Amino acid sequence: MTELRQNAITREWVIIASERSRRPDDFSQEKVRSATLPLYRADCPFCFGNEHMTGEEVFRLCEDEKWRVRVALNKYPALSPEGDRIRTYHNLFRSVSGVGFHEVIIEHPRHDLTTALMSFADVANILRVYRQRYATLRTDPRVASIIIFKNHGAGAGTSLEHPHSQLAATPIVPYEVRFRTQEAIRYFDDTGECVFCRTLADELAVGDRIIFASEHFVSFIPYAALSPFHTWIFPRRHCSSFDNITDEEILDLAIVLKTTLAKLYHGLGDPDYNYVIRSSPTDERRTDYFHWYLAIVPRLSLTAGFELGSGMYINTALPEESAAFLRSVEIGNG
Amino acid sequence: MTELRQNAITREWVIIASERSRRPDDFSQEKVRSATLPLYRADCPFCFGNEHMTGEEVFRLCEDEKWRVRVALNKYPALSPEGDRIRTYHNLFRSVSGVGFHEVIIEHPRHDLTTALMSFADVANILRVYRQRYATLRTDPRVASIIIFKNHGAGAGTSLEHPHSQLAATPIVPYEVRFRTQEAIRYFDDTGECVFCRTLADELAVGDRIIFASEHFVSFIPYAALSPFHTWIFPRRHCSSFDNITDEEILDLAIVLKTTLAKLYHGLGDPDYNYVIRSSPTDERRTDYFHWYLAIVPRLSLTAGFELGSGMYINTALPEESAAFLRSVEIGNG
Repeated sequence: MTELRQNAITREWVIIASERSRRPDDFSQEKVRSATLPLYRADCPFCFGNEHMTGEEVFRLCEDEKWRVRVALNKYPALSPEGDRIRTYHNLFRSVSGVGFHEVIIEHPRHDLTTALMSFADVANILRVYRQRYATLRTDPRVASIIIFKNHGAGAGTSLEHPHSQLAATPIVPYEVRFRTQEAIRYFDDTGECVFCRTLADELAVGDRIIFASEHFVSFIPYAALSPFHTWIFPRRHCSSFDNITDEEILDLAIVLKTTLAKLYHGLGDPDYNYVIRSSPTDERRTDYFHWYLAIVPRLSLTAGFELGSGMYINTALPEESAAFLRSVEIGNG
Repeated sequence: MTELRQNAITREWVIIASERSRRPDDFSQEKVRSATLPLYRADCPFCFGNEHMTGEEVFRLCEDEKWRVRVALNKYPALSPEGDRIRTYHNLFRSVSGVGFHEVIIEHPRHDLTTALMSFADVANILRVYRQRYATLRTDPRVASIIIFKNHGAGAGTSLEHPHSQLAATPIVPYEVRFRTQEAIRYFDDTGECVFCRTLADELAVGDRIIFASEHFVSFIPYAALSPFHTWIFPRRHCSSFDNITDEEILDLAIVLKTTLAKLYHGLGDPDYNYVIRSSPTDERRTDYFHWYLAIVPRLSLTAGFELGSGMYINTALPEESAAFLRSVEIGNG
């Protein structure tokens, strides 16, 4: 018989279909794609030397007078920085003007790299830029919520090979963020503690779903992971907003993020994935109940009508087995 | 500038990216696949004559001593009918045994058909079987929620060509259903009316997003459709549970469902899609605040990190344009 598990933070239910389950390495994509990419492509707008091909540059992080990470406006933005935030209500038809920011973070001058293959210093640079953009854009009074995310591979929604991520600063708080915040407040009121801190303590006490733990961060496959190898990275220190991350924590997160992604890369053959940094709404920067974190979702299975209709998921990989597998993957020095 | 729209029922926000928008027929898949399928395949477990290849049969609807619709247990069930519903709590780790039902509804003896190409009588038979299964399984005290859904095409999560749909009867109420119910209760408390009835009245008053309307049902693209050609079919009569549908309403829904799917089929070249019947939890069969409906989601775009991170969607098709396009599609007699 299968087992249904509920995530105490998101309230989502997942069917852990162990009767359908495969061995962890059966999920391997056997691609190891980035190893065969060129260092530079003349037609890639994100490659070093092709800076004129991107949207307007809004930030760059330099070393030795060369950029290491660049941020440009998205050329096809879903949100635009011009204009006011205007709400319109006609009966139940509610709209808000699409003001906000949609930026592209070019993570490295080189075309052939991916986070899993970068140095810790490179990954720390990306995280520093995330923090700079987050801290800058949250001061705009039209911005209610900021999402930083990465699409890696065609199955995760990008056709661009060059390593990059995106930032969207939206004029409203998405309902998922609102809903999770309400649940977190309720848990805090009932128990006096943060449901994320509690989850992390419980996961560390059990231990069998931990992938990698460092001084400041823990990477683990949650008890009720929605899909195979769905991974969370939690800061140990309670903190609701990502831009409060310290310099020391950035160096530590670079190690945990790169190590986790490298284990996925080497263990599963460079699978397509998304990651996203979930942080509190910009007006709620310091709260006792919300806790920022990073979620990685490898694209190893397709959601269909079952998930669509129920909001429930079927996960064919046992989280404990997946975590044990990733713990055993050697990533070498690269 | 784009526009953000909020769905008053689900609270979901969508960015209507009209600057990115394409003409409605640019979404065409140009496949018209089913026209070339054989009537029968020897290796298809759902074809007439191959009944021994399915899981155990639990129901059949016959005409002229031949089955027209069959229901069998899923051979790879996510939920199993044996055993008790047992909740287990350890700290924040919550689980429920995977009891329930996971059935396959074989919609027609013929391999080459799809709902868009069936007769109204065929589609009415499928709906009668849905009602029979729903009404039967809801009496099991271990069942908290029933989802009926269809995956059409590989992009929608099925590799089986033969027309079929599925039913999942789950031992818990999924959080999406809970969340929507709570929102619907709040709206009812605030206004004294059903938010679904109000939405339907508003859509009919505006009119430009209606695809097809009959005596008992209305098919429309909602104001805040999450993805291109995302379609809802609402019963005009307020009713919270699908199994309360009357015989007359079934005949009428067959016309509306087939017509809507045929317009998608002919207008967009047989796109992959999912549909799902959303009904109230089984213990809440008659409520003032919930209203069952059918949602159709063509798989014309891929969700990526943006959607994953924010719970917001980007829709590159203007709902009003999509609906006008579908209204104009002729479906002939077939």
